[in-house]
Amino acid sequence: MTNAEALAPFLPEGRGMLLAYDHGLEHGPTDFDERSVDPAHVVDLASKGGFTGVVLQLGVAEAFYGGRTPLVLKLNGKTRLPGGEPVSRQIATVDDAVRLDASGVGYTIYLGSVHEPVMLREFAGIRRAAREAGLAVIAWIYPRGAAVLDDTAPEIVSYAARAGLELGADAVKIKYTGDIASFRWAVRAAGPTKVFMSGGPKAKTDVAFLRQVRDILDAGAVGVAVGRNVWQHDDPEGFAARLRALVLHDKPLEEVLPR
Amino acid sequence: MTNAEALAPFLPEGRGMLLAYDHGLEHGPTDFDERSVDPAHVVDLASKGGFTGVVLQLGVAEAFYGGRTPLVLKLNGKTRLPGGEPVSRQIATVDDAVRLDASGVGYTIYLGSVHEPVMLREFAGIRRAAREAGLAVIAWIYPRGAAVLDDTAPEIVSYAARAGLELGADAVKIKYTGDIASFRWAVRAAGPTKVFMSGGPKAKTDVAFLRQVRDILDAGAVGVAVGRNVWQHDDPEGFAARLRALVLHDKPLEEVLPR
Amino acid sequence: MTNAEALAPFLPEGRGMLLAYDHGLEHGPTDFDERSVDPAHVVDLASKGGFTGVVLQLGVAEAFYGGRTPLVLKLNGKTRLPGGEPVSRQIATVDDAVRLDASGVGYTIYLGSVHEPVMLREFAGIRRAAREAGLAVIAWIYPRGAAVLDDTAPEIVSYAARAGLELGADAVKIKYTGDIASFRWAVRAAGPTKVFMSGGPKAKTDVAFLRQVRDILDAGAVGVAVGRNVWQHDDPEGFAARLRALVLHDKPLEEVLPR
Amino acid sequence: MTNAEALAPFLPEGRGMLLAYDHGLEHGPTDFDERSVDPAHVVDLASKGGFTGVVLQLGVAEAFYGGRTPLVLKLNGKTRLPGGEPVSRQIATVDDAVRLDASGVGYTIYLGSVHEPVMLREFAGIRRAAREAGLAVIAWIYPRGAAVLDDTAPEIVSYAARAGLELGADAVKIKYTGDIASFRWAVRAAGPTKVFMSGGPKAKTDVAFLRQVRDILDAGAVGVAVGRNVWQHDDPEGFAARLRALVLHDKPLEEVLPR
Amino acid sequence: MTNAEALAPFLPEGRGMLLAYDHGLEHGPTDFDERSVDPAHVVDLASKGGFTGVVLQLGVAEAFYGGRTPLVLKLNGKTRLPGGEPVSRQIATVDDAVRLDASGVGYTIYLGSVHEPVMLREFAGIRRAAREAGLAVIAWIYPRGAAVLDDTAPEIVSYAARAGLELGADAVKIKYTGDIASFRWAVRAAGPTKVFMSGGPKAKTDVAFLRQVRDILDAGAVGVAVGRNVWQHDDPEGFAARLRALVLHDKPLEEVLPR
Repeated sequence: MTNAEALAPFLPEGRGMLLAYDHGLEHGPTDFDERSVDPAHVVDLASKGGFTGVVLQLGVAEAFYGGRTPLVLKLNGKTRLPGGEPVSRQIATVDDAVRLDASGVGYTIYLGSVHEPVMLREFAGIRRAAREAGLAVIAWIYPRGAAVLDDTAPEIVSYAARAGLELGADAVKIKYTGDIASFRWAVRAAGPTKVFMSGGPKAKTDVAFLRQVRDILDAGAVGVAVGRNVWQHDDPEGFAARLRALVLHDKPLEEVLPR
Repeated sequence: MTNAEALAPFLPEGRGMLLAYDHGLEHGPTDFDERSVDPAHVVDLASKGGFTGVVLQLGVAEAFYGGRTPLVLKLNGKTRLPGGEPVSRQIATVDDAVRLDASGVGYTIYLGSVHEPVMLREFAGIRRAAREAGLAVIAWIYPRGAAVLDDTAPEIVSYAARAGLELGADAVKIKYTGDIASFRWAVRAAGPTKVFMSGGPKAKTDVAFLRQVRDILDAGAVGVAVGRNVWQHDDPEGFAARLRALVLHDKPLEEVLPR
Repeated sequence: MTNAEALAPFLPEGRGMLLAYDHGLEHGPTDFDERSVDPAHVVDLASKGGFTGVVLQLGVAEAFYGGRTPLVLKLNGKTRLPGGEPVSRQIATVDDAVRLDASGVGYTIYLGSVHEPVMLREFAGIRRAAREAGLAVIAWIYPRGAAVLDDTAPEIVSYAARAGLELGADAVKIKYTGDIASFRWAVRAAGPTKVFMSGGPKAKTDVAFLRQVRDILDAGAVGVAVGRNVWQHDDPEGFAARLRALVLHDKPLEEVLPR
Repeated sequence: MTNAEALAPFLPEGRGMLLAYDHGLEHGPTDFDERSVDPAHVVDLASKGGFTGVVLQLGVAEAFYGGRTPLVLKLNGKTRLPGGEPVSRQIATVDDAVRLDASGVGYTIYLGSVHEPVMLREFAGIRRAAREAGLAVIAWIYPRGAAVLDDTAPEIVSYAARAGLELGADAVKIKYTGDIASFRWAVRAAGPTKVFMSGGPKAKTDVAFLRQVRDILDAGAVGVAVGRNVWQHDDPEGFAARLRALVLHDKPLEEVLPR
Repeated sequence: MTNAEALAPFLPEGRGMLLAYDHGLEHGPTDFDERSVDPAHVVDLASKGGFTGVVLQLGVAEAFYGGRTPLVLKLNGKTRLPGGEPVSRQIATVDDAVRLDASGVGYTIYLGSVHEPVMLREFAGIRRAAREAGLAVIAWIYPRGAAVLDDTAPEIVSYAARAGLELGADAVKIKYTGDIASFRWAVRAAGPTKVFMSGGPKAKTDVAFLRQVRDILDAGAVGVAVGRNVWQHDDPEGFAARLRALVLHDKPLEEVLPR
């Protein structure tokens, strides 16, 4: 199975937009409002917004996933509370993903942490099991820890992208470097491993965010994995429609920007 | 199996009150008096007081549990003695729980400890085994460690509640935030994961404690898990009756308060 | 199997005296003289002195245990050399104990050490295996480490005793608190878990030691586990006879004291 | 199987030159240019340049290895980002190597790191599995960590070489000591374990590098494992031809040097 | 199987001399000269010198052991490079030893290191496997680490010897204390566990070394395990002959000393 085959459920026509919703564990409900705190609302939004994938932790997936959008089951996780070098350990399995009818699994690697070896090893085991089960493997690769001064520096982001290829991820989720040229290099470094841009915190304006998305698509990324920029939006469905126009239909920025 | 189904033995009519008695390991017998040091007395009290569950460590359960009240077997534990970041490791198994005819298992997670990853992983394994065995899984989620400044801050308590949902706990036991509104948010963050308030140390007055219980019920919690407030009470059975009136029969506070 | 049944080989008539001889590993031969350095001598002494159990490490048991006295095989051990927080790991198995025809196994837990979780877990596994094999499980529970200021403080000793019950030990070996009342509380905290007093270093006088033994028996302990006080004695068999009179035949102190 | 038999695919006529291309994980794409960032280009170069082996990480091997050059699958890896004592853990298996039709496996040991024991153990397990599968085992032995002041000191390099023999590696990849005599001693210390010189960063001039290669061959090494000196070269194929002349055909330096 | 039976291959007539040659891993080739760097030379020397055993690491044993002298396969090892508390982990197995037709296995325990528990546990597992396979188990017990001020102090050496007995080693290899009386006490503390003196660095004079050997034999040791004192000697075979006279034929010192 090639990585393109593995990723097919998430990349109709070769592009994809994933709705990430593992913030309840990673950040706590402080990210949520009355609507977005409800997994049913967000899972529904994934469907209505035409997302090509939804990313959930095991507990939320078991209680709320209904099969309308391809599922990426997140297999590791941590809270934002502990100090020290970051590490996120496996808490769900590929078997869980199969049981829940997921199409892929996600795993976060904090590249540069002193705990990097633990995560590289765990990822390798997950990748092996996922390959056997025919599931896509998406690596959240976030350089972090005392050794990483700037996690959006081009050299660091392209390192993350390349690590995804070397480790055999079907796709990586990485941060934006800030300019097309350096992000294009990151995409090139990833080779056949597909690149999703990580949405990050809510952007100040829709224009700023959409411009970024247009940039990374032009740089060769297959799409975005977004969370707060969608479900913290006043009009999530409207914003999702703009994203679809950009990502899935490859519209030019001017056709997509709000007037 | 939904979490409501799993919790059914502990939640007749959707409400429950658990009598916790693992303090011998967690705190030492300093919490006990001549009566409460005797597990037979407390297990009897669980039954006579109409509690819907009793929480015991393996050694006590093997020697004293008689089946009159549904059992939550606590699967991890520690003493209060060691310094450093808190960690509590698994010392009993789901198989032990099945053998003892327990209806559920309990596991404490010190969210925010540098040992958080160890406990998240161990909990995940326990949850898997418990699901297969048809037992309820109740997570004691206590943010603690150098990174946690205030473990009853609303943001922290709601984080604990939400982590329970994300990790797939059937229920969580969390501390009271101090006001209904913020506790309601915590309950909402937990979604389908049921919320028990942790009783904590003996309250100064019955009124103070019962008012708290009324608050958390109004905020949507399914009940309380209490220990010292009951078995350190001068009249444990009388106090349990008041709790029953509030929790199980949903009486207004004024009907329940001591005159 | 109840703990009384498990302990039956060591507690004829409900009382017992164990001869401990694992000091070669725990302290080194500095504790021994020309006679006591020889395991054959001490194993013989266990038999001639009428002890109800003898405690040995695997190597000594394999070479010297002859079956005349019920055997407690010590399953963990350490030297006194390493600094830092104390930890003693499993180095022999319940299978070894069965093969050697032991009647019980022993395991030391340094309650309060930062390594407490490791020992609690290991003890739990040993207990499970021993239960299946029908062997008694005796926990040496010694609060120790930077967090423990006084390991004979009543609160600490009773904590050790209670931990034995919570963890499901058939018996605990704990230190003397210094007075009957507080030791009685420790015995009470242990509930059905039987209590042996740990002999400790050679007492200054026989009278002092025997008085202590009388005290702990009066406080409800089932007996003593002694080593140096016997095999460092000028007249080990004579001293053992006095212990037997006190522990096994429950004589008053005045009948037992040397004239 | 002797180590000569195991290494046969990589050592036609007893000499070999390996093209290393695991830098994407070890250093990041900062080592690459527009051509060398593309694994297809480098794998092609291995073939066109007449290399006797190519060294790849799992992800790259799965996507790009086509069987034209014998494969060494690298089984461990790390990024250059984390601080602290170096450690590289196993992330691919001998089974992966067999599945990919590799002829050998590679593993890096940071001798002298406080994590040395972890790597020695992991290497031992890999060696066992590789022996059973009939694959060659090549150890990258790089003394490194706070305890290693100069990793090209003759005493240190010969230690690395000898460790390869003692651990049962079929071949070791070590750094150049700077002079023939001391490198000859390292080769001698390795005994039947074959020695490859590690290419290291791009040399300032071709002459300098080729002279080094001639030296190590004269000292008894079987060849080189090079990466940056080839694929960072302006004329990789031309440079590879010079290497072949030296390594595989044992030409004198003057016949090989660029004019 | 008694330890005398297990050790029979190494102790013809009850005495033995082992030629140790694991220095390539433990110290590096800095210990070797042009002859001794060659394992074939040293393995040959073991045979010609009439040694009753030869001690090798796995890699060297696989390539050079020919069966002329009983083999002790060393199962753990480390380099001298890493700082911090010493630890040596298992890198070969009892199965390896059986496959290589070894008669025994060796394992080093750094008593007193903070990593002591790891080594005690690993040794216990090895001992169990070796017992089942009918191989002798020889423990190199070297007190070392920040907590050990003087590793040849009588109290420390006798502790090492006794630990060997308690842990069930068939034989221990310990350092000389410097006088017969204290070494005799160490031998006595070891009981049925046989004692080999560790040769250590090359002695200043043959006389000095041979006198030491005579002393430890008079103290009850069964022989010596030597390396550098033999293969760094100008006349290894001649020196071996003197050792044989002393150790195997129990000659008085004056008959053995060089004239």
